[in-house]
Amino acid sequence: MTQKCMAEFFGTFVLVFMGTGAAVLAGTHVGFLGIAFSFGLSVVTMAYAIGHISGCHLNPAITISMLATGKIPSKDAVGYIIAQIAGAIVGSALLWLIASGKADYTLAANGLGQDGVESGSPDGYSLMSGLVAEIAFTAVFLLVIHGATSKNNGNTAFAGLAIGLALTMIHIVGIPVTGVSVNPARSIGPAVFVGGAALSHLWVFIVGPIIGGLIGGGIWKFVDKQS
Amino acid sequence: MTQKCMAEFFGTFVLVFMGTGAAVLAGTHVGFLGIAFSFGLSVVTMAYAIGHISGCHLNPAITISMLATGKIPSKDAVGYIIAQIAGAIVGSALLWLIASGKADYTLAANGLGQDGVESGSPDGYSLMSGLVAEIAFTAVFLLVIHGATSKNNGNTAFAGLAIGLALTMIHIVGIPVTGVSVNPARSIGPAVFVGGAALSHLWVFIVGPIIGGLIGGGIWKFVDKQS
Amino acid sequence: MTQKCMAEFFGTFVLVFMGTGAAVLAGTHVGFLGIAFSFGLSVVTMAYAIGHISGCHLNPAITISMLATGKIPSKDAVGYIIAQIAGAIVGSALLWLIASGKADYTLAANGLGQDGVESGSPDGYSLMSGLVAEIAFTAVFLLVIHGATSKNNGNTAFAGLAIGLALTMIHIVGIPVTGVSVNPARSIGPAVFVGGAALSHLWVFIVGPIIGGLIGGGIWKFVDKQS
Amino acid sequence: MTQKCMAEFFGTFVLVFMGTGAAVLAGTHVGFLGIAFSFGLSVVTMAYAIGHISGCHLNPAITISMLATGKIPSKDAVGYIIAQIAGAIVGSALLWLIASGKADYTLAANGLGQDGVESGSPDGYSLMSGLVAEIAFTAVFLLVIHGATSKNNGNTAFAGLAIGLALTMIHIVGIPVTGVSVNPARSIGPAVFVGGAALSHLWVFIVGPIIGGLIGGGIWKFVDKQS
Repeated sequence: MTQKCMAEFFGTFVLVFMGTGAAVLAGTHVGFLGIAFSFGLSVVTMAYAIGHISGCHLNPAITISMLATGKIPSKDAVGYIIAQIAGAIVGSALLWLIASGKADYTLAANGLGQDGVESGSPDGYSLMSGLVAEIAFTAVFLLVIHGATSKNNGNTAFAGLAIGLALTMIHIVGIPVTGVSVNPARSIGPAVFVGGAALSHLWVFIVGPIIGGLIGGGIWKFVDKQS
Repeated sequence: MTQKCMAEFFGTFVLVFMGTGAAVLAGTHVGFLGIAFSFGLSVVTMAYAIGHISGCHLNPAITISMLATGKIPSKDAVGYIIAQIAGAIVGSALLWLIASGKADYTLAANGLGQDGVESGSPDGYSLMSGLVAEIAFTAVFLLVIHGATSKNNGNTAFAGLAIGLALTMIHIVGIPVTGVSVNPARSIGPAVFVGGAALSHLWVFIVGPIIGGLIGGGIWKFVDKQS
Repeated sequence: MTQKCMAEFFGTFVLVFMGTGAAVLAGTHVGFLGIAFSFGLSVVTMAYAIGHISGCHLNPAITISMLATGKIPSKDAVGYIIAQIAGAIVGSALLWLIASGKADYTLAANGLGQDGVESGSPDGYSLMSGLVAEIAFTAVFLLVIHGATSKNNGNTAFAGLAIGLALTMIHIVGIPVTGVSVNPARSIGPAVFVGGAALSHLWVFIVGPIIGGLIGGGIWKFVDKQS
Repeated sequence: MTQKCMAEFFGTFVLVFMGTGAAVLAGTHVGFLGIAFSFGLSVVTMAYAIGHISGCHLNPAITISMLATGKIPSKDAVGYIIAQIAGAIVGSALLWLIASGKADYTLAANGLGQDGVESGSPDGYSLMSGLVAEIAFTAVFLLVIHGATSKNNGNTAFAGLAIGLALTMIHIVGIPVTGVSVNPARSIGPAVFVGGAALSHLWVFIVGPIIGGLIGGGIWKFVDKQS
């Protein structure tokens, strides 16, 4: 595995371990706002730690949107996505190791509808609301990502901050709907261990973010000066 | 529509969708502090995403204050304002699409007095308090905007962060008074769908921010070294 | 009045209006954490808005520490301090105008001991604890201010962010003790309107921050490479 | 003592005084999220205040990881660690001076298992969960530290922000498990005054962070382009 793929592996590990970790270990203490900051800060910190190595995607929907806009070669994209999914699964596994000493732990799988604590929507939103939300949130996320790293942009040093805080904003708004995925790897990690409805809903958190990411990339190409 | 106006359309869409979205979808979970961060981060993220395209106004009160200080030509200003209002309405429409599956949703219209959940002041402040607050908050906002982007300022790369966090600060202080507008487009978006008192109060959230924005611009011209 | 003093007037107005405004208008909604962010963000935003004009002191304890370390001439210092106190009083006056429509408003004066809602310590700390805390907090604050703006420091563009977030940190820790002053102007503003114990305690919030600011400046001179 | 060691002394004093101070003085008001921000902001602010003097380690686990990767000479490392532990003890002492006026104060020692308020795990996690968590969190922390300050990284000006916010993220996730150490000095400070179980558990908060810091440094060497 190349150093770039190793960076994506460890970066996505941190995103899932610390992002879903906030929900699993501390959710009752810090609330949805605290969880939103932990997810966003995992991206802020990794962007400045490994951004110079791999670009810090940590998310197949980002890698696919980058591929569609010609910013990454397809052979790199495959390795990135495999590394991201592997990092997410290892992140959920380590979280399970720490959390399983408590009686009623969950792993913060994404959910829809009213299927219960682990795989339902926190506020009972329907499949349709959840799918629309995931597409819209990921489109917003990728508009920030493409714009903040655009070659026309003179302040790309701030991209890591803007992109990470975009993920915080998206979690502030969206946790009640689906728990927020906008990232297939983040959803696959816990779903592998939780199984059941978390697995049967998984397609929404793969298809939705990928569609949203392509829409976000398309809007950016349409709007940015010389792209 | 020019690329600049498209950028204002999508940017204001994000501000309304994610800012009022935090109130509508997550307000009971994240509180006024979480809503304040979502509004502010929508501006931080858009500033670094589209600032290099349109300057990222997202707000007719900003565009008018920029026009009054000679920073934008009047023909651009008209297109900006139309795009901002259109983006805000589409943002509220998409939010309605996601939220309407729940029984007792609102759309986070700005409010005054004791007219009920959707169009009253959260803490029952009067029209006069609300108008004074909107003027004062927008003046503070525009002082930050003009100062942080001043040609005399050597740290304009931080303007997006300072301006967005100014909006967070203003929401922390002001949500109990009016829900905080400081932006006619942000108020028009939900009011179109809510109607009733939200529409009859709307003039306060158009006149107040515009007056405040002009005062903020005037203070800046008076204070900044060589403006 | 010079443009520098005008900048200090408006900047301190914003600090008191938005900082104590968060406590007065929104304290029951956003908690001490929200108040802490509003105070800190008032400094972050003003630092990037008017820092290039006056240096953005907004605080007599800062101006006196700058005077003691030879960074500002004494005739400028007098004007700064007068402008800061005037700005703080006007900030409290405007806040009173908005808040007085509600029955049981306060103006967020700093307090000590168990003298009641407006002029007591939120958690009932003694005069001695309050004085020690104000000295220690202001010393920490001035260590950050001198260090982050040191001519030996290559990252002074981040000073506004570091200094403002230092004020957030200090408020997170210290609001239960005295409401946090670390700034004589911030304490004088509301005390003028509240009177009574707020006025009789005022010397603590003048003497404490000035002593602390001198200690912080002294530590910095002792520690920084070539100062 | 050299100026570098003095900087480490005062910096670690601030970390312990303001970080554990948030828990001790304000924990019931600001919650775990507020405590997490105070710890993180102590590092953000000190990084920009004294980073140019000593590198702003404030933590023996960081200094040892820097020593293992050849970034600091061993004679400097010894002085750094002594200064860090001394600063932490003085920070806890000053906090005790302010807090001891209240009847039921604690000093925010780190804890494990169900040994009570001061020296147990907030949510009753076992020794094994706590040790795994401290190792994992410190590895994440040091991956951020090494990556954000790497000579291959073009955005090292943001390192102070990324590293401090990493500590906020780690506290959001980990306070329920052990109160979060990831820093032997931070644990030694209060343990000296609390004694008992806080002292008998101390080895976990010395060994865990040191092992984690070495793992984080190792991952970074493995992943970064030309390290």
